[in-house]
Amino acid sequence: MNKRVNLKIKDLEIFVTNILKKCGLDEEDAKTTCDVLLLADKRGIESHGIARLQKYVNGIKQGTIKITNKIKIIKETPVSLVIDGEGGMGQPIAYKTMKLCIEKAKKNLICFATIRNSNHYGIAGYYTLMALKEEMIGISLTNSAPLVVPTFAKDAVIGTNPISVGIPAEKEKAFLLDMATSTVPRGKLEVYARLGEPISHMWATDENGIETDDASKVLNNLIDRRGGGLSPLGGSSELTGGHKGYGLGALVDIFSGIFSSGEVGTDVYVKKGESSGVCHFLGVINPEAFTGIDDIKKNMDYYIKMLKNSKKASGQNRIYIAGEKEFESEKRNIDKLSVQDKVFSTLNLIGKEFNLKLKAI
Amino acid sequence: MNKRVNLKIKDLEIFVTNILKKCGLDEEDAKTTCDVLLLADKRGIESHGIARLQKYVNGIKQGTIKITNKIKIIKETPVSLVIDGEGGMGQPIAYKTMKLCIEKAKKNLICFATIRNSNHYGIAGYYTLMALKEEMIGISLTNSAPLVVPTFAKDAVIGTNPISVGIPAEKEKAFLLDMATSTVPRGKLEVYARLGEPISHMWATDENGIETDDASKVLNNLIDRRGGGLSPLGGSSELTGGHKGYGLGALVDIFSGIFSSGEVGTDVYVKKGESSGVCHFLGVINPEAFTGIDDIKKNMDYYIKMLKNSKKASGQNRIYIAGEKEFESEKRNIDKLSVQDKVFSTLNLIGKEFNLKLKAI
Repeated sequence: MNKRVNLKIKDLEIFVTNILKKCGLDEEDAKTTCDVLLLADKRGIESHGIARLQKYVNGIKQGTIKITNKIKIIKETPVSLVIDGEGGMGQPIAYKTMKLCIEKAKKNLICFATIRNSNHYGIAGYYTLMALKEEMIGISLTNSAPLVVPTFAKDAVIGTNPISVGIPAEKEKAFLLDMATSTVPRGKLEVYARLGEPISHMWATDENGIETDDASKVLNNLIDRRGGGLSPLGGSSELTGGHKGYGLGALVDIFSGIFSSGEVGTDVYVKKGESSGVCHFLGVINPEAFTGIDDIKKNMDYYIKMLKNSKKASGQNRIYIAGEKEFESEKRNIDKLSVQDKVFSTLNLIGKEFNLKLKAI
Repeated sequence: MNKRVNLKIKDLEIFVTNILKKCGLDEEDAKTTCDVLLLADKRGIESHGIARLQKYVNGIKQGTIKITNKIKIIKETPVSLVIDGEGGMGQPIAYKTMKLCIEKAKKNLICFATIRNSNHYGIAGYYTLMALKEEMIGISLTNSAPLVVPTFAKDAVIGTNPISVGIPAEKEKAFLLDMATSTVPRGKLEVYARLGEPISHMWATDENGIETDDASKVLNNLIDRRGGGLSPLGGSSELTGGHKGYGLGALVDIFSGIFSSGEVGTDVYVKKGESSGVCHFLGVINPEAFTGIDDIKKNMDYYIKMLKNSKKASGQNRIYIAGEKEFESEKRNIDKLSVQDKVFSTLNLIGKEFNLKLKAI
């Protein structure tokens, strides 16, 4: 077991925001980025939390992430936007775009934005949550570094390309889907590789495109681009529905990278130091486009109860709704966070460079 | 092996349309319904083709499907529609709604429609294809009879709730995703039950909600409502990503049944003879909302080639794009269709009642 360290959210906010400011981000962008990272940790998605700070700092240093404090609107209609992120930090780009989408959806009921030339934007669900706070339906998709092998292919061509959709409810917690279109994220393989345990045959394929239970092999193959990688949701074969996960992953690439005339597939993160070319797709639908917020929230409560009150499988005592575990985790972590010892020391290593120090509780 | 019979498309068109007219549908609705059914067979999706005619005829006789020749617009905005199908035949309801969506998307760039109180509408992809013919992006979702067991649940609560999205390409065939959110459809279990072969553990759970390889048991349990059913895409466990397929299935229920204030989950197809309450969600996005049709089609060609030209897994010689196999099947079946002997005799049994006869070639 990894040792863990407790940290105050307040301390983390100051520390992470200051580091990002020292890297060149303005106050607003640093705060937004910090907020997206901390929310991931609070919601229990550690792979997308402050553990990634090092990658962002490196990205800025290497020039993959440019210092900008605006987004460029390439095209605007009453119900849509095409945005160029100009290689900036993903979180503020997506945040600012989602803000615009919410404003437009308030007026015109629907707004979709496709964004090119951005960077890793953290958890997809952050932006759907922005819509939920306004009692709107939120959509958030992004492409990412090629790690997933299409059905019958040998090489990783598409990203883990997540899909997030959020629907408000009344007394129940909102429905908040936020899922990679691969069976598991790369982080899961890293955990199994460290433990030396075999992985499920549904998770990944080797350098020949054949299912494997060897996590270390898959990770090394990905680093050396020898072939193989993560399997789409449904696994590597049509028998178990892998072509569906592959289709969904491609769909995310299309909405993000094709509609914005940005990068897709293996063109994302091609060279270190150059723009990553990550593309997103964000959307807001005003419930007034349909039967209205009151009816929809009531209907959602009814449906959520129907699912949760359904009979449990043998050995199970609870049925979850998408996002439910994460909302509960967020509630537990309002004031403080427990992070891995290793993450804590890495944060202080980054801080040292900028004369900043993070204290444990 | 089942024996197969060859039939002329022209003969089938006349035969099926006439039966539907004799059942009470008007000329236009009968033709639409026939067209949806035949396209399914042409595209190789036999489970949703003319083999279902018996079910539709029974539905009309039992009153589950009402004879209507219109759709009722409950709410209309520049970018959305809420439709009540008033219990009518699903295909004409969805066809007419999609026509309206296309018109509105031509003017206002985006139109989404949520439809309550409809019936089984055939292949979801039929309606996305309507958008593709107009060089638009099409979306088609529907809920259906509860057959799928949520993660950690024992009973089938949600339908196989398909997702179809279509994106136009230039020289390449369009990208046309059309997938159930279960790992496999019920029809697949029926094939294995007939053959007495074990099914994949990713496909279904037994009356205790535990994975099983016994197709007959699952089918009988579903009929007798003893528990168990199809597993979501990703299987019955979180380890293999089943919660993602469950989340996607619920999402389809929400867009179709919650946004329209219609039926969801176990409220769909509750009682024989009563309205099924099936709900759909249809959408059209005009490429001009984003970087425009010319750019998007060119980008799609580039992406499709990237995927198809990628290296193949050991033992594989081709990578497919969503919908590609079906487009090739459609091309093969332009003039004639090969159907199962059993389907042919059932069709003639239905025809006999109406003094109609279908001849084999």
